[in-house]
Amino acid sequence: MTRQQLVEQIYKKQSYLCVGLDTDITKIPKHILGESDPVFVFNKAIIDATKDLCVAYKINTAFYEASGVKGWESMEKTVRYIDKEHFKIADAKRGDIGNTSTQYAKAFFETLPFDAITVAPYMGEDSVNPFLEYAGKWAIVLGLTSNKGANDFELQKMGNQFLYEKVLQTVSNWGSQDNLMFVVGATQADEFSNIRKLVPDHFFLVPGIGAQGGSLKEISEKAMTKDCGILVNASRVIIYASGNEDFAEVAKAIASAYQQEMRTYLTQQ
Amino acid sequence: MTRQQLVEQIYKKQSYLCVGLDTDITKIPKHILGESDPVFVFNKAIIDATKDLCVAYKINTAFYEASGVKGWESMEKTVRYIDKEHFKIADAKRGDIGNTSTQYAKAFFETLPFDAITVAPYMGEDSVNPFLEYAGKWAIVLGLTSNKGANDFELQKMGNQFLYEKVLQTVSNWGSQDNLMFVVGATQADEFSNIRKLVPDHFFLVPGIGAQGGSLKEISEKAMTKDCGILVNASRVIIYASGNEDFAEVAKAIASAYQQEMRTYLTQQ
Repeated sequence: MTRQQLVEQIYKKQSYLCVGLDTDITKIPKHILGESDPVFVFNKAIIDATKDLCVAYKINTAFYEASGVKGWESMEKTVRYIDKEHFKIADAKRGDIGNTSTQYAKAFFETLPFDAITVAPYMGEDSVNPFLEYAGKWAIVLGLTSNKGANDFELQKMGNQFLYEKVLQTVSNWGSQDNLMFVVGATQADEFSNIRKLVPDHFFLVPGIGAQGGSLKEISEKAMTKDCGILVNASRVIIYASGNEDFAEVAKAIASAYQQEMRTYLTQQ
Repeated sequence: MTRQQLVEQIYKKQSYLCVGLDTDITKIPKHILGESDPVFVFNKAIIDATKDLCVAYKINTAFYEASGVKGWESMEKTVRYIDKEHFKIADAKRGDIGNTSTQYAKAFFETLPFDAITVAPYMGEDSVNPFLEYAGKWAIVLGLTSNKGANDFELQKMGNQFLYEKVLQTVSNWGSQDNLMFVVGATQADEFSNIRKLVPDHFFLVPGIGAQGGSLKEISEKAMTKDCGILVNASRVIIYASGNEDFAEVAKAIASAYQQEMRTYLTQQ
């Protein structure tokens, strides 16, 4: 999916919501567990319920790999079930030497039909470049993450900058606003205005609202650009909002509340 | 596998060789391609040929994920085929917020019987800790890697240290020499003496000899400890040494040459 297509979807749906499919077999409603692939059945119901309210789905690969081959099958079925109008993110945090990153790019952009993959920056340019070589595909590189561990390295000073600032500035030169986004956690709202100055035009993928406590209002005020420029992810707060038979219905209600709030911020632009 | 068990294997076999199974379906000998799972058939032959000469196998997950579900099946069959006397490394470069890293730990330590997984340090302590909670299992955290991109961040100064030095010092406090190793690339031989001073007792996993050009002699002289303390990986230079029907035999010869060289360095200790 190109940047233009993504922006069109955002304004058409008046939403920049990404629904995170962190689907944990131990947390899905009991009445589904008898199905041959309960994870896919759960995801399908969530997708059907939320597809008009979000522009992206983020599949967290860890939750699928935890079930081995069967989990990888559920992931494949899920990503193939999502239609072309949604931006499909493999939240995989990959990154390795060039010839290995090339294999990861093949895994997620050729073998599976993802539009984007999250990538760790530690190993530098040749670990990121292979993900930038596909037309209409994206690398979403970790900038400042939403977890406590961000303090260990990301928020340590490298010269007169924080490491994450150095990462944002350096990595933004490896690609363009058409194939590169950054992960910036919603819990880092204090830093958002500064971050937006450093990379004025790139999209940010913003996890951390809901279970992790970030504020949609604050993020939107500080990070939104003239063509939106943010995808805000919510995972557990939507998909596990109800543990009963009404889980999809309740997920839809939560997604709808986010979309309605997002509409107001988009209108203010 | 515990540290004591690993060290016993090293001295018993007089080898600290790790064979890297970066098995690329486009590079394996043509006569195998008719098999129902050519990647597993290839790996099985390599393992049978090299198992007396090495103490570890490193499975590079990217090369399996590139083939999707079928690749994950080949990976599972391969890791289950390797016996208990070998240290089994998932070279997966994972790492995410705590609840996600917990799922990756489950994937590689419970669902699959790996002894260790490589982990990227960027997201900090809570992204690494879940891998340290299993008795006899290991996190192998990226320190200084063998690729050109190491210059982008790892070899940039953070205060009076390089970032990778800060990572080694900080991360070494999160675990012990019994559950934590570091990746230090063989192409970084100039830094090895210094690195060994920073983390005197931890094992290093050293990739980058062979195709990437690192020197086994130099690494061994600079990084070996009283109980060896290094696992040196060779992948392409062993598994693709011949592209013909004799591939396993030739792989064995190359592995044997490494083992014989390693024996001399172990004896000098």
